Amino acid sequence: MMAVKLIPPADEAYNYPLLIKQLLLSAERYAGDNEIVGGNNGQRFSYSEFIERVHRLANVLTEAGVKEGDTVAVLDWDTPRYLECFFAVPMIGAVLHTVNVRLAPEQVVYTMNHAADDLVLVHDDFLPLIAKVKDQLDTVKGYIQLTDAAQTPEPPLEVIGEYESLLAGALTEFDFPDFDENAIATTFYTTGTTGNPKGVFFSHRQLVLHTLALAATTSMNDNMQLLQASSVYMPITPMFHVHAWGVPYVATMMGLKQVYPGRYEPATLLKLFVTEKVTFSHCVPTILQMVLSSEKAKAIDFSGWQVLIGGSALTEGLAQAALERGIDIYTGYGMSETCPLLSTTWLPLDADQLSQAEQVRLRVKTGKPVPLVNMRIIDEKGRFLPHDGTAMGEVVVRTPWLTQGYLHEPEKSEELWANGWMHTGDVGSIDSGYTLQIRDRIKDVIKTGGEWVSSLDIENLISQHPDIELSAVVGLPDEEWGERPHAVVTVRPGAQVDRDAVVSFMQKFVDEGAIEKWAIPDTVKVVDEIPRTSVGKVDKKLIRSQLQDG
Amino acid sequence: MMAVKLIPPADEAYNYPLLIKQLLLSAERYAGDNEIVGGNNGQRFSYSEFIERVHRLANVLTEAGVKEGDTVAVLDWDTPRYLECFFAVPMIGAVLHTVNVRLAPEQVVYTMNHAADDLVLVHDDFLPLIAKVKDQLDTVKGYIQLTDAAQTPEPPLEVIGEYESLLAGALTEFDFPDFDENAIATTFYTTGTTGNPKGVFFSHRQLVLHTLALAATTSMNDNMQLLQASSVYMPITPMFHVHAWGVPYVATMMGLKQVYPGRYEPATLLKLFVTEKVTFSHCVPTILQMVLSSEKAKAIDFSGWQVLIGGSALTEGLAQAALERGIDIYTGYGMSETCPLLSTTWLPLDADQLSQAEQVRLRVKTGKPVPLVNMRIIDEKGRFLPHDGTAMGEVVVRTPWLTQGYLHEPEKSEELWANGWMHTGDVGSIDSGYTLQIRDRIKDVIKTGGEWVSSLDIENLISQHPDIELSAVVGLPDEEWGERPHAVVTVRPGAQVDRDAVVSFMQKFVDEGAIEKWAIPDTVKVVDEIPRTSVGKVDKKLIRSQLQDG
Repeated sequence: MMAVKLIPPADEAYNYPLLIKQLLLSAERYAGDNEIVGGNNGQRFSYSEFIERVHRLANVLTEAGVKEGDTVAVLDWDTPRYLECFFAVPMIGAVLHTVNVRLAPEQVVYTMNHAADDLVLVHDDFLPLIAKVKDQLDTVKGYIQLTDAAQTPEPPLEVIGEYESLLAGALTEFDFPDFDENAIATTFYTTGTTGNPKGVFFSHRQLVLHTLALAATTSMNDNMQLLQASSVYMPITPMFHVHAWGVPYVATMMGLKQVYPGRYEPATLLKLFVTEKVTFSHCVPTILQMVLSSEKAKAIDFSGWQVLIGGSALTEGLAQAALERGIDIYTGYGMSETCPLLSTTWLPLDADQLSQAEQVRLRVKTGKPVPLVNMRIIDEKGRFLPHDGTAMGEVVVRTPWLTQGYLHEPEKSEELWANGWMHTGDVGSIDSGYTLQIRDRIKDVIKTGGEWVSSLDIENLISQHPDIELSAVVGLPDEEWGERPHAVVTVRPGAQVDRDAVVSFMQKFVDEGAIEKWAIPDTVKVVDEIPRTSVGKVDKKLIRSQLQDG
Repeated sequence: MMAVKLIPPADEAYNYPLLIKQLLLSAERYAGDNEIVGGNNGQRFSYSEFIERVHRLANVLTEAGVKEGDTVAVLDWDTPRYLECFFAVPMIGAVLHTVNVRLAPEQVVYTMNHAADDLVLVHDDFLPLIAKVKDQLDTVKGYIQLTDAAQTPEPPLEVIGEYESLLAGALTEFDFPDFDENAIATTFYTTGTTGNPKGVFFSHRQLVLHTLALAATTSMNDNMQLLQASSVYMPITPMFHVHAWGVPYVATMMGLKQVYPGRYEPATLLKLFVTEKVTFSHCVPTILQMVLSSEKAKAIDFSGWQVLIGGSALTEGLAQAALERGIDIYTGYGMSETCPLLSTTWLPLDADQLSQAEQVRLRVKTGKPVPLVNMRIIDEKGRFLPHDGTAMGEVVVRTPWLTQGYLHEPEKSEELWANGWMHTGDVGSIDSGYTLQIRDRIKDVIKTGGEWVSSLDIENLISQHPDIELSAVVGLPDEEWGERPHAVVTVRPGAQVDRDAVVSFMQKFVDEGAIEKWAIPDTVKVVDEIPRTSVGKVDKKLIRSQLQDG
C-alpha cells in the first residue's frame, strides 16, 4: 500500500459523488429555447418541462413501489420518455434495464428474469409479447403502458396506468438523494452468436466520466465539431443499445436540441432530419446505407450532416458514398462492454487539403483512443506488442467506464478481465500515431506458423478478383502450421473460379508486399451462398464446421 | 444508507482510479509535431521528449529521497520544467507545493514550514532568498537548482545538483504506480488581507475531473472555441497560482502546443505571442492592461487572440479596449479554493449580431456555471434565494473539485464548508438564464434595514460624477438600520465635491430605479488618496476603522 497523503474520508458532509443527477445541472442553463422532440408522437418539450417530467416520473416510479436497488425495465422505441427514464430511474437509486426489443421472445424473457426486473415500462407494440410471456416473468411486480396513440388502447394485461396520465397526476418535485457513485445505474444484454445474452452494467460514476470524456472529445478537433451548442442531435442507434452510445447524456448535459425518432423508418428519419435541421447522428453502417438508398433520400441535401459510424466496420465504399452526398462521416470504436466509446476518427488540421481518397482512408479507421483510455495490443502470451502499424494483437483496454464483469457470470467475467485488462475480442494494429485499425475478431484470426493473419485482410484482397462476388476466410487446424487459411467464395453469374485463379491473383499482392505468402488459402471452395447468422453476419463458425466435415 | 446496487468493490484488480498520469495517455497521441516551448531559455520539447523528461524527473526525485506522501516545493517562473513538476511530482505519489514567489520572505518561510516541504526546486532568482532563510526551514532535506543561464552559476547554498544535469543523468523510464485517487496531488497558499496564508489542496481525482470539465467547457460553445487541436496556449497567470487555473493539465491532455513565458515582462510576452502564434491565454485584468498599454503593443495585430480574464472583475472599459484590438475576451469565475473554474462567459449563438456594447456587457459577466457545478446564492440565514437577477446573496457551490478545507486549519475549514456548501465569500445575483453576476465581497456588502446593498454598485454610480476620480464605499454600524453606507472619494484637480452634490447626483439613479434610495451614503468624505493594501487593493478595512475613529 502506498503511503500517499489522502484527503479527508469520503463520508464527510462535503463529499460530492459523481451522480447522473449532476448532468442535469448544466442542461437547463445552456439550453435556452432548445427543445426535446419526439418523432413518435410529435411532442416537444422545453428543457424545463423535460426536467419537471423527470421529477414527475420519479414520483410515479416510487408511487409504483420502486425502491433503491430495484430494477426498472423499459421496452420502447427511441422517445423523449425513454430519455426521461435514462435520468429518473438511476436518479432514484434504481437500475435501468434497457431491454433489447429485437431479441427473440424467449431471450427477452431470459434477460428480464436474469436482470430481476421489478417494474416494466412497455410500449403498445410490445404489450402483446409481454402479455403472452408474463407468467414466465418471475420478478416483475407491475407494468406501465407506453402509448403513442391519441386514445390509449386497451392493454392486453393489467397495468398500473398509462405513462402520460400517471405523469399528469404526479407531484412536480422529487428530492433526488445522494448515494454512492458506484451504484449501478444501467444494465443491458449483449448478444453473441451462441449462448445466452450476457448482462453488462454501468455505475453512475462510469456514466458521468464517459459523458465528460465524450463531451471533451467531440469538440476538441477543429475538423470534427460533432457536438456544439448549435448542434441538433438525433440518435439512429437504439436507446436500448449501450444507451444510444451514451450521447443522450452528453446532449442533455450540454442542453442541446434533441430529436428522438421513434421507430427507425427511412421516411420518418429523413423527414425529421429535414424539418428539425439535424446536424449530428450516429448509427451502424447498414442503417446509413438504408437511409441513403431510400427513394426519398435522392432529393435531400445532406451537406453538413455529421454521422459517427460504429458497431461494425465502415467500408471505404460507404464512406465515399456518404462524403459524396456531403455527409461528414467518422468512425467510432467501442462495444457494449465499454459504455461504449474507446476511440474515434482523428482528422489532422490540414484535413481539408487531402484528396477524397485520403479522407476516406482516414475516416474508416477506428481512430485514436479518447482521453483516459489506456489501449494496448497483446500477443497470445499477453505480451504488449509494438505500435508500428503492422504487429497484430488482441486489443485490451483500461479506462474508468468499462463494465466490471457480466452479471452473475463469474467465469466469463474473469475471462473478460484476465490480467487486469479488459479483453475486447478484437484483433488490431496500432500505428506510431496511435491510430487503431481493427483487423479481425480474435476467434476468426488465423494463427499460422506462429504468425497471426487477419481473415478480413485476405477477404478484402480476394474480393478484388473480378469474378468473385463475396468471400469468407476461416482458419482450420493444420498439423504442421497450427492453422491454415481456407476460403469459400461466391462467384459472379456466369463466371468460374478455382484455387489456381485465386492463388495467381493473390500472388501480385504478395509481390507488392501487401500480404505474406502464407496468407494464401490452402483451399478455395465455390458455394452458392455464404452462410450467415440470424442477424446477418457471416457465420464463420458454421463455415469452419462445414469445411471440416468436408 | 441507501440500498443501491453497487458494482464490485474498488480494490479489485480492474479498479481504475482517476490519476494525473492518465492525462498523459492522450497527450502524445494527439500532439503530432506540437512543441512545449520555454520562453525562459528558448528550449523546445516534442511531446515524446517532454514525457521522457517527466520519467527522468521522477527518477531524479526518488534518487533525491522523495517518497510517497512527501512534499516537493517549486519556486520558479513559468517554464516547461514547471510543467514537468506538475506531472512527475504527483505521479510518484508526492505532493507538489507551488510556492508563491511574490510573498514576503517571512510568508514564504511560513508556507514552506506549514506545508512541511521535503525537497525544494528553486530558481537562481530565488536562491539568495532561500539561502538567507534556510535555517528557518524546519523540514527541508535538500535543494535542486533551476537555472536559465548557459553556465550554471555557483549556488549560494548546498544543492543536490542542477535540474538539467540531474535529468541528463537519470534513467529514461519510471514505472508510475497506481494508488488511491483521493491522494493529495497539489497544495498552495491563498493570501488574504490579514493573517497567515491558508493552504488549499487538491487530489488526483479532483484535478482529473477539473481537467475533463474544463476540456468539455472550453470548446462546446460555437462562439468560444478556446481550446482546440489548433490552439497555441500561453498562460499569463503564474503556475504557482491555482496551477495556472488548471489549463496546463487540459492543454497537455489535448496535446496542444504550449508556450511558457518565464517571467512576465510585456516585451517577452508580446514577442512570444507573435513568434509562437499564441491563440489562447488567461490572466488578471491588470496584466492585460499592462500588455496592451506597452509601447511595443501598438504595432501588434491581436486579432483572434482569445483571453480569459479572472482573478478580479473585468471592467467594461478594458473589455471594450480589448475587443477594439481584436481580442476575443471572456471572463471566468473561480478562486484558489475551487481549483479554480466555476463559471465562464457564455455567448449566445447569435452573438456576432450583437452590438459591441452588448458584447461588452455579456463578456464582463462571470457567466454560467460549467457542467457538474452546483451553484446557489443564499441569504444570511442560509436560505436559497431566487434566480431573478436581482436578489443578492453569498455564492455557495458544490462540485467535485473544491478544496476539502484549509491545511491544518479545522476552524477555518468548518467555516468554509458550513452546511455542506463551500462558501465563496462573494456576493452575487443569478438571473433566470443562470448567469452569475458577482456584486461584492461579503465582508464589504452593506446590510442596511434588512437589505443587502453592494458597495461596488454604489461606487460605480458615484464614480460617474464628473468631478469624482475614485470612490470607496463602506458600511458602518448604525443603531437604527444595522449598517449605513459611507463614502470616501478623491476629486479631480481643481474640482470641489460635497455630500449634497453626491446626493443630488445619485437621486437621478434612484429615480431611474437603478438603485434604492437607502443606498445613498450618509456621509461623503473627500480624501487625498484612497487607502490601499500592499497588493494594491482598496483597503476597506482601514477605511472603516479610519471613518469610525473620525
